[in-house]
Amino acid sequence: MTPTIPVANLHRFCTAALTAVGVGAADAKTTADVLVTTDTWGVFTHGTKSLRGYVKRLRGGGLRAAGKPKVLSDGPAWAIVDGDSALGMVSSVFAMDTAIAKAKKTGIAYVGLRNSCHFGAAGYYAWRAADAGLIGLANANDIPSVTAPGARTAVTGSNPFAYAIPAGKHPPMMLDMAISTVAGGKVYAARTLGKPIPGDWIVGADGKPTTDPSGFPQVGALLPMAGHKGYGIALLIEALSGVLSGAAITWQVGNWMQSDPSLPTRHGASFIAIDIDAMSSQGEFRARMDHLIDELHAAPKSEGSDRIYVPGEIEWGKRAVALQSGIPLPEDVLANLRGLADDLHLDLQTLWA
Amino acid sequence: MTPTIPVANLHRFCTAALTAVGVGAADAKTTADVLVTTDTWGVFTHGTKSLRGYVKRLRGGGLRAAGKPKVLSDGPAWAIVDGDSALGMVSSVFAMDTAIAKAKKTGIAYVGLRNSCHFGAAGYYAWRAADAGLIGLANANDIPSVTAPGARTAVTGSNPFAYAIPAGKHPPMMLDMAISTVAGGKVYAARTLGKPIPGDWIVGADGKPTTDPSGFPQVGALLPMAGHKGYGIALLIEALSGVLSGAAITWQVGNWMQSDPSLPTRHGASFIAIDIDAMSSQGEFRARMDHLIDELHAAPKSEGSDRIYVPGEIEWGKRAVALQSGIPLPEDVLANLRGLADDLHLDLQTLWA
Repeated sequence: MTPTIPVANLHRFCTAALTAVGVGAADAKTTADVLVTTDTWGVFTHGTKSLRGYVKRLRGGGLRAAGKPKVLSDGPAWAIVDGDSALGMVSSVFAMDTAIAKAKKTGIAYVGLRNSCHFGAAGYYAWRAADAGLIGLANANDIPSVTAPGARTAVTGSNPFAYAIPAGKHPPMMLDMAISTVAGGKVYAARTLGKPIPGDWIVGADGKPTTDPSGFPQVGALLPMAGHKGYGIALLIEALSGVLSGAAITWQVGNWMQSDPSLPTRHGASFIAIDIDAMSSQGEFRARMDHLIDELHAAPKSEGSDRIYVPGEIEWGKRAVALQSGIPLPEDVLANLRGLADDLHLDLQTLWA
Repeated sequence: MTPTIPVANLHRFCTAALTAVGVGAADAKTTADVLVTTDTWGVFTHGTKSLRGYVKRLRGGGLRAAGKPKVLSDGPAWAIVDGDSALGMVSSVFAMDTAIAKAKKTGIAYVGLRNSCHFGAAGYYAWRAADAGLIGLANANDIPSVTAPGARTAVTGSNPFAYAIPAGKHPPMMLDMAISTVAGGKVYAARTLGKPIPGDWIVGADGKPTTDPSGFPQVGALLPMAGHKGYGIALLIEALSGVLSGAAITWQVGNWMQSDPSLPTRHGASFIAIDIDAMSSQGEFRARMDHLIDELHAAPKSEGSDRIYVPGEIEWGKRAVALQSGIPLPEDVLANLRGLADDLHLDLQTLWA
């Protein structure tokens, strides 16, 4: 077993890697906050595992270390933000913070983001709103990896969708999902390990379900969750994050892992914040959320089940353990961090120091 | 085969039934617009089939024929609307129209609705926004009928979620889905016909999947689509439509079909409108949506498929046929209309006149 890694050490390593390639201290901290928080939730497919890829693109110039997201146009309850090819974490935090500030004045706000890149876990941005006492929604588009009913190839991204809702005595309710049956990261992980996958995750080159991940994503595609429903939600996200924001859509989006690192990927994202204080009181709203959560916990269990979880509950539990005892980073994440340390001549041992 | 029914005749019959029980002309027209439009889309589970139930509740007093929805509190980009126990169609049109008007000033608006009832097809309200050139989202809560991972009984409503997005040469993209694998109405329809159902629609009293709909909904529950993802979306809808709006939530919501018709059901709903004109131009946005739709249509087809549909395309196709050739109402809908005609001593033959 891999020894666990203290949260502060992982954060420091990420910050060091980012500043080593020219990212300013504030943006490096923002990015490390997003990635390390994601790892504390146990969402290892979307945390520091991706940092090596981001750094490669920063060195290539497709991501701009000195990029500064800015508001291109705005109104009382909306803004379109140009991410300026800064790290997706930097432009997305800027965009959600813009949405939060506007929603506090008007009740709800939408911010569309263009010229972004892969932004990691959508849930982080949604949680940022919940942490400020608002309901947060975050979603993004990506290069197509998911097929649709009647199609043989990918037609939409796995287009993450996340929300977070403040509660009272309970942690925020939080869902972060891909609209595919599973995230592409899980297929990559199986491919890396040479393991077969369940039959409802992907289709092969012939458009039929397969348990062999070895060709993905060059051939075949992920299956959308719940068939036409997942496909339909993917297109709503494409409209909100890509079409309305003025970002690239579908095949215009760059592959953040495999395309020429000197090119911007032009991902889009969108963020909605809803101000509870405007419409209710924090106390009353949170008490009602607690009531809902208590009711769910108390519902009769199915055979073999001793607990009903609410969305985010597992992640908050893992985070509490990680903050106390460190993060049990899996080997595929460590392999990426090891590669990153080699790339930049950093000392990986500081993770355990 | 049942002969098809001219749209105008069905609309006139609905209006006559509603005015016969004291609903004013404008509200009767609004309600008939919603229900008949839904039937033209071929969404027969949520159209005029429900009218007999609404009329029963209007006669019982739980729905108020003279109810007048009003804005309880509001701000620049939000409102909380009290439905005053008017028909769900009347209060929901009022709420979405309020959201549209506010969004045109601020860019986006949220309207939460309390003291509503079953509102029919969520897609109608989303489409109302799209028809005015905005992106529309509509959702609602309902009495629990859907279980969750780890649970044995229903814990959330089937909580409909709908969106509609304007396009250019193509009709609006439109999705209207329940967060259950299927809508409860499909299980009722199978129960009425005494037919078995697919194994992933419901669980029985023991919490295990069953193909027997005969006990539903008194025992067992619908399964959420895509497991924890559908469950998670159900809870977002509960928060937006129930908790934030100040409506009843989960088991506090009344059963609009089976509870004492003298009691209000206190359903909640929520409506979000996003003004495309504020952030883009209608022309540019619609051209980009057309590009997306054309791309989806042109994608390689899976074996046995000759067409890839975008959300709403099937419904718009059915509507075009219905407007020209009449609506092919299925027998279960006709049976309900026959019962309604008997209840109110109306002449059902006017449907074919």
